[in-house]
Amino acid sequence: MRYLHTMVRVRDLDSALHFYCELLGLEELRRRDNEAGRFTLVFLAAPGQPEAQVELTYNWDPEELTGGRNFGHLAYEVDDIYACCARLQAGGVIINRPPRDGRMAFVRSPDGISIELLQTGEARTPAEPWASMPNVGAW
Amino acid sequence: MRYLHTMVRVRDLDSALHFYCELLGLEELRRRDNEAGRFTLVFLAAPGQPEAQVELTYNWDPEELTGGRNFGHLAYEVDDIYACCARLQAGGVIINRPPRDGRMAFVRSPDGISIELLQTGEARTPAEPWASMPNVGAW
Repeated sequence: MRYLHTMVRVRDLDSALHFYCELLGLEELRRRDNEAGRFTLVFLAAPGQPEAQVELTYNWDPEELTGGRNFGHLAYEVDDIYACCARLQAGGVIINRPPRDGRMAFVRSPDGISIELLQTGEARTPAEPWASMPNVGAW
Repeated sequence: MRYLHTMVRVRDLDSALHFYCELLGLEELRRRDNEAGRFTLVFLAAPGQPEAQVELTYNWDPEELTGGRNFGHLAYEVDDIYACCARLQAGGVIINRPPRDGRMAFVRSPDGISIELLQTGEARTPAEPWASMPNVGAW
């Protein structure tokens, strides 16, 4: 057997793609519009890692996309957790759990999907503005 | 950046491992008990695919693990979708969306996490008992 993807639903495809691709850094691999079913599927992955995809399901008819407790988060490691969090923050994303320890951060997608970010390799040296930044909300 | 895992919470570690490992076919890669935090983390992956893991979080203090709409499912492809569904069904798992088309099925974990199963390669020839089996519940 082989893992294919984790599927998450999105209310607004443009804002979801802005978050997952432009701010977080995933790449769009393929897209499929289904006129009859009134939905669009977009498959994303980290660059060079097509074997672990995220499937965005955009239903054309609005629905409420609240979260639950059984699903926790998606986790990615990044080469520079400070640069990644700075890019997300500049894009208007709240850093719910700032990387105070130079190692771990949590943010949320526009639809409330929790995303864990981990520094690749050894933790960075604690540095401002992150070291003294408080938690915001839940993740 | 690199995908690491999708985290899901579980109420009962034994029944979760029975589902994910013995019935579904994932392998346990490592486990960490945290006495201070009162939780256990177990990392699973499909055989030979450690780059795409599922992290089970078992909090020792009970909590309700209801689902939400923003998270959809985890998807795996399997070599024989009929054998996989038969194994799950024999283990007491409801086949919410039977593989009537020889290609796709959905089940749920003990904690309500939806799992999509897709036949690797071409669809199988439709066959009983699956071809005439109705859907059960939602997935």
